[in-house]
Formats: sequence, C-alpha cells, structure tokens
Amino acid sequence: MPQTLADLETPIPVVDLDRLARNLDRAAGYATAHGLSLRPHVKTHKSPVIARQQLDRGAVGLTCATTHEAEVMSEVCDDILVAYPPVGAPRARRIARLPTHARVTVALDSTAALQAIAAAAKDERREIGVYVELDLGMRRVGLSNLDAAIALAREAIGRPHLRFDGIAFYPGHVREPVARQAKSLATLDAALSAAVEAFTRAGLRPTTVSGGSTPTLWRTHELSAVTEFRPGTYVYNDRTTASIEACAWDDCAFTVLATVVSTAVPGQAVIDAGTKALGREPMRGAEGEGFGALLDRPDVVVARMSEEHGVLDLSATSWRPEVGQQVRVVPNHVCVVVHLNDVIIGARGDVVATTWPVTARGRAFDL
Amino acid sequence: MPQTLADLETPIPVVDLDRLARNLDRAAGYATAHGLSLRPHVKTHKSPVIARQQLDRGAVGLTCATTHEAEVMSEVCDDILVAYPPVGAPRARRIARLPTHARVTVALDSTAALQAIAAAAKDERREIGVYVELDLGMRRVGLSNLDAAIALAREAIGRPHLRFDGIAFYPGHVREPVARQAKSLATLDAALSAAVEAFTRAGLRPTTVSGGSTPTLWRTHELSAVTEFRPGTYVYNDRTTASIEACAWDDCAFTVLATVVSTAVPGQAVIDAGTKALGREPMRGAEGEGFGALLDRPDVVVARMSEEHGVLDLSATSWRPEVGQQVRVVPNHVCVVVHLNDVIIGARGDVVATTWPVTARGRAFDL
Repeated sequence: MPQTLADLETPIPVVDLDRLARNLDRAAGYATAHGLSLRPHVKTHKSPVIARQQLDRGAVGLTCATTHEAEVMSEVCDDILVAYPPVGAPRARRIARLPTHARVTVALDSTAALQAIAAAAKDERREIGVYVELDLGMRRVGLSNLDAAIALAREAIGRPHLRFDGIAFYPGHVREPVARQAKSLATLDAALSAAVEAFTRAGLRPTTVSGGSTPTLWRTHELSAVTEFRPGTYVYNDRTTASIEACAWDDCAFTVLATVVSTAVPGQAVIDAGTKALGREPMRGAEGEGFGALLDRPDVVVARMSEEHGVLDLSATSWRPEVGQQVRVVPNHVCVVVHLNDVIIGARGDVVATTWPVTARGRAFDL
Repeated sequence: MPQTLADLETPIPVVDLDRLARNLDRAAGYATAHGLSLRPHVKTHKSPVIARQQLDRGAVGLTCATTHEAEVMSEVCDDILVAYPPVGAPRARRIARLPTHARVTVALDSTAALQAIAAAAKDERREIGVYVELDLGMRRVGLSNLDAAIALAREAIGRPHLRFDGIAFYPGHVREPVARQAKSLATLDAALSAAVEAFTRAGLRPTTVSGGSTPTLWRTHELSAVTEFRPGTYVYNDRTTASIEACAWDDCAFTVLATVVSTAVPGQAVIDAGTKALGREPMRGAEGEGFGALLDRPDVVVARMSEEHGVLDLSATSWRPEVGQQVRVVPNHVCVVVHLNDVIIGARGDVVATTWPVTARGRAFDL
C-alpha cells in the first residue's frame, strides 16, 4: 500500500479519519443529549465499515434507499429502514428477502406500493413494518392529505404481513443556514404536530415519527414530535453543508485528491477531477459558484468541468499550481461523489492509514 | 435472465441493439466515405463488447481517457491512444505498463507531462508515441502558441523512448446544431491548417492530425487537415446530441429504464431515476430544460432530482402515469450515465436479448 497521498494515482477519494470520528461522535452525542433515536442514512457512505462505527456509537438502526444498500447493511445491522417506496415486484421481492435476522421497515405513500410489499411479505412469510410517508413541504413524495395518510395506515394494519410502525417525512426543503431555520422549523413542527394529533385521534398514535436531514440535524429537537432522525451527509460533510453552517469547513472529512494535469491555457489550471470524479452538483440554498473548492484554498473553485477535466479558476488568486501538483477538492455534494467510487482512502494528515470498499455502490442486479 | 423489460428491477440502463448497430454502421460508413481514420473514444461505453464492434467495422484503434480504460481496451485492441495528459508517476507508469502488443500514444501539452511519460517509458523499455495537444478554441487543455507546441514536439523527438506522432485537438466548443456549424468549422479549419503549416515549415510535418467529436462528427471532412477523428457519444447518442441534430431522436439507443414510485404530490410523477442514475448534466448549446426526457414522450422531462428520485413535470401534458408504470428516460449526457452503472441491458423492443458489463467503469486502483 502506498504510504502517503503523494504516491496515489488520482483522482481518488480521501477521508480524514480524525474528522470522520469527530463527525460521528458529535451526532451520536447530540442524539443522546436530546433522547432521539439516530438512524443514519447510509446513502452517503454506502459502506458497512462506516455503518458499524455508527452502530457502535448508539445508532438504533440504519436507513437505506436502494435494495443493494439494504442487503449490504443487513450484514452488520438487524434493523433496516428502506426509506423508499417499495414499488415494483422485483424491488419489493428483494426487500422481503432480506436476511430474516433483520427487522425491516419501508416508507410508502400509495396503495400500489403497499400492495407490492404486502404481496412480497406474504410470499416470503415475513413481517414488514410500514411508515406512512407525509409531505411536509418538500414536495417530492409523501401524502399531504392526512385523511389519505390515515387511510393508508389502516390498509397496512389490515394486511396480516404488515405492521404500522409510524410516520415519516423528509425536511429536505429546509436549506437555510442553521441559525436562520427557526421559522421553517416552527412551520414544520406545527404541521407535524397536527399530523400526529390526527393519527392519534384516529386511534393510530404513531410509535415512531421519523424525520431529519443533515442541514436540520442540530435543531431536530425543535420538532417536538420527532422520535428518530435520519441524517446521512454528516459523516463526511461537504461544501454545501459547510456553507449552510451545519458544519465548519474543518469538519469536511471527505475530499477528492486530484492532480494538476495542464496549465497550458492562461488563467486556469486543469485537474483530473471532472464530472466523473466530482459529479455536477450545484450549491443549493447557499451562495457559491463552481462544483467544488480546494480544501486548503476554499476561494479556488472548480469552475468548469468535462468528464475527466476540472478547470480551477485562478483569476482571483495569485496562486499558480504546477503541472503534477496535487490538490484536495471538497465536493459540493459528497453523496453523489461516493457513488462514483469503488474504494475510499482513509488518511491521517498525508499518511494513508487504511482503505475500504464502497460495498453498496451500484445496484448489484441479479441478471 | 428476465425475458422482458417489465421483469427488471429499476433503474437500469437499456440499449436498443438495432439502434446501436445502426449508429456504429453509420459512423464507420462516414469514415470510409471520406477516407478518415476512426479512432472512437471509449469513455462513452467503457466496454470491450462495444469496442470490438467498432474495431470490426474498421476503427483503426481506440481512444481512452483513463488508465483503466486503456488497460481494459488493450485486451481487444493493439492501438491505444490515451488522449489525456500522462501526468503523475502512477498514471505514467500504468500507461507504460500496458501490454506490449499494443501501440501506445499519449496526447500532452507540457514538458512536465512529457518528462513523466518519458521516464516511465524508459523504465519499462518501451516506445510511446506523442501527440502534441493544441488548443483551437476549447480552452481546456492544449497549447495555442505554435512555437511552444513545436518546441514540445522537438522535446519528444529528443527522447529515445518517445515518438512524435502528430498533433491533436478537441473541438468541444463547437456546439451549434450541425446545419449551423459552417462558420465555426471554417475558423477551426483555418487555425488547424496554420498549425500544420507551421509544424511542416519546422520540418515536423505531423503524420497524424487527430480531432473530432460527436457534435462535429458528420462534418469532420470539412477540417481538411484532419486524418483521424475520435467521437465517443455516437454509439449511444443522447438528448443533447439529438437536440443539436447530430442524430435523430430515433437514433438514441440508450435509455434508463425507470419506474414511477409516487404520484402523491399533484402535478408530477416521481421515478426511481435521480442523480445517481441520470447524473445532473444540463443541456448544452441547445434549448431544453430538465435532466432527461422520456423516449416515447420527449415533451415530458425530468425537471428536478434528488439522489434516487426524478420528478417528471406533468404540468404541460394530460398523460398521468400510475405508480408502478415503467418509463424510459433518454439522458442529457449518456457518458456520465454509463459511468454510474456496472451492467447494461441489450434489448430488441421490450425483449431482453443480452447484457454486458461496463468493464472499464471506475478506476481499478491497485492499492
């Protein structure tokens, strides 16, 4: 194994192990302090190596989006939430066939999804829990009509292989800087409380109320009804997370190590990290140009990209990197970057300490 | 193996085999008709299965960007161009260690890159060819100063393990619809002719002049000095290629098969293809909103995305898909979508005919 980052072929993702541990500790500490159940979303790291560290620090279970994530995580965890509509017989079947040691729950918002998972659960003779998904402002999935949501919960209760476990929502529309989220969270809290009240009046008091994101992580306790939260990005953080102040710049644990491959065109330097290494995620809910920024020079951004080229805009800096020089790029959105890679380097400073596979990357279709 | 697309778990890429064959035939026919050498860029398909079909139709060799692409393609091809600066000892070493049956050429624009590949070639005791990369308007990599370019060619000639094979450029800045490229191509032709003339005056007449892209594919012959061209996207095509009329909509061979997973939020339908299945590439050099369009309903686009969710905007159509219904999405930029996947489905109509692995996806680092 190479001993230092300078020995590595690039582009390659590098995680600062000390920052990772600090990020994991801080979220676990927050959950404990507020009596909340932390059920991290694995979409960010897609690795049982990191999942185990989350579980060791008290996570009650894991959240997955894809069937492959659920399969991989069931090797290290016995409580899996698939926070994704179990639509389509192949998907529902794969969920129902997860190892039987695992308690499995799905989130859904339609009768069609409920029928699909009920049929698969019946075929596999196992019980599967259901969260009814609510739309509390994200406008992506979820029911906003509470009567319809309650009716769906009743449908779940009426199926012998399903459990009604509670309600779920995703506050992904709350993107203000943490210090300015009070109004959005108050609106959300009111909507959530009304939902819980309606379910309770209908005799369906939800035992679990599942929500949360990394941007709202540190104020989750202001949503009084929430019992469990599902942040993902907090393990690594990224440029967006830092810009909305849900982490400090020094909490960004994940970078793409890249090399300057050309300075032939004046005013810029080209690195070997383009869209196939960084994704093409814009900054959201925050000021900021470009598709990533240098860890040591956050004012230098990846301004343009091709598939294997990233163009560093040097017009506002006197810094002039040389061809061959390495840089570390903090991506705008780390989750999509992890999904581009098969292996992660774990480093302390410039020293390579370990590597781990992104085991749950891809789909692992059985064709 | 599932028999029809309806049996497949989604999201999964599906290639129409008849369209693929037609696309391959047409480009090969164009090359023959104009006496041009076709050296396709494999970045689009990353598969030796497709590469072999290109070579069987007369391609003179293959173009690669990454070392992993070059390694994989050397299994089916004995003439590999790495059209990427061979910067950094690990990258240069990996190129120099390609199987010896392969003729290897690199494109570069700096003394640093030349030194790196010369050192690796010397260590491995093999000869490596050099194209001097010119910037003819793309402003990404390449020299625009012809004296500097000629000096770099002389440096290559002065190294015992390097060959000077010619000049290369990438006309990626020409993005107009094909019928309106005359002016851009005339400008490019003049610049290219001036470059060839300068090299020839210096006693370095380039035996190969390598350029070309999919948008300019069908007018490559208007660049009088070009001897070989390197289109990639033409094998599959995509929404951008169709919109600039370098292919017809019916030439789009590649789609992402997806499933409607939620219609709970009015005015939209949510499919299971988000940024982790479609990438987040904008339309470039062309009108068009969204991140992909439905093959059978090009007016319905993926308007918003999360990692595993794509939101179909239904505001301008009376079509109302149901939860569970499959759709096929033509992505904006197919090359980044292929890079997200491990396997491709080959279909005729709705029937699954074959599958093949995306063998050169990822980086295959030896850690």
